[in-house]
Amino acid sequence: MLSLRSVTAPRWLAQIDGRFDELLVDHAHCEKKAAGVAMNLLFAYVDHTDLARAMTAIVTEELEHFHLVLDLLERRGIRFRRLAPASYGRRLHELLRTAEPERAIDRLLVAGLIEARSCERFALLAEHAPDDELRAFYRGLFEAEARHHATYMRLACQRAPEAVVRERSEALAEAEAAIIATGDPVPRMHS
Amino acid sequence: MLSLRSVTAPRWLAQIDGRFDELLVDHAHCEKKAAGVAMNLLFAYVDHTDLARAMTAIVTEELEHFHLVLDLLERRGIRFRRLAPASYGRRLHELLRTAEPERAIDRLLVAGLIEARSCERFALLAEHAPDDELRAFYRGLFEAEARHHATYMRLACQRAPEAVVRERSEALAEAEAAIIATGDPVPRMHS
Repeated sequence: MLSLRSVTAPRWLAQIDGRFDELLVDHAHCEKKAAGVAMNLLFAYVDHTDLARAMTAIVTEELEHFHLVLDLLERRGIRFRRLAPASYGRRLHELLRTAEPERAIDRLLVAGLIEARSCERFALLAEHAPDDELRAFYRGLFEAEARHHATYMRLACQRAPEAVVRERSEALAEAEAAIIATGDPVPRMHS
Repeated sequence: MLSLRSVTAPRWLAQIDGRFDELLVDHAHCEKKAAGVAMNLLFAYVDHTDLARAMTAIVTEELEHFHLVLDLLERRGIRFRRLAPASYGRRLHELLRTAEPERAIDRLLVAGLIEARSCERFALLAEHAPDDELRAFYRGLFEAEARHHATYMRLACQRAPEAVVRERSEALAEAEAAIIATGDPVPRMHS
């Protein structure tokens, strides 16, 4: 699915079972962090106009989703609060090469992988979330994540020959699958 | 004007005279930085819902303005590029107190002062920019900066008794006026 090298194991649905309030709070943080990632890329590569436009669209849309989740929390009487994040983001970040243009390619590909994994998890939640409103909510968010994934892939492919980018994308997708397979002790969107 | 303690000296219009292309590039960076400031405040104080909503609106609007300036640059054949910034932002940043809640108050007040100074300079440009399109452009942007200033002041006043915030606001406005009075060797929106 998308560029992912694994599908979510059944243990994840078991892990979040009965912990959905906490998962929703984590989801809000994920949307905020996705906006932050796009803003950081805008700052880092601002002289690339195509990227600047695409990142602006993603920042805006992710912040919109952030508030959709905050509204959902409020309707359900769940307090939005800080949460220890899963180690997923930090571990992906450690894979980034340091020299340019490799770093830009890796940052775009990793951002694309996170969107792809979110997309895959939202698809699961669209089927398995505990009530109708939540299932509809995740059906509604699913498409944006797939679109953002495609945007990041397209931008990465502008920075090196496509075959080179594809090869790196596959290596990072393998690493992402390994990280997601180890899981996380806390129930999170990327645990 | 707004909470500013000084009006721009005639030397600024003299400094930017004939350097408007460079000023426009700096203006694009300023809009991007304003979006970044709001995003950083959103991340730092995310559990404050009122602030999170207000910062989201500012991020979105500043990024919109960033692209308005990029479009203007493109129409005029001016290459958007990195520029050494004025020292204004760095020098204001040095004024921030380090302990909370004082730091939050200072960050909001300084962000408000920058919006106020931009507003004051945009008003000057609405009269003195070199052509009709530019004068209309700055007339169009003026109002948003005044509104953002008011938002930052309102949010600062939620974090301490209003009299305390007002007193700090005046001290910071004095410091801002001193910084702007020293100017900068490069022609910039805040030189």
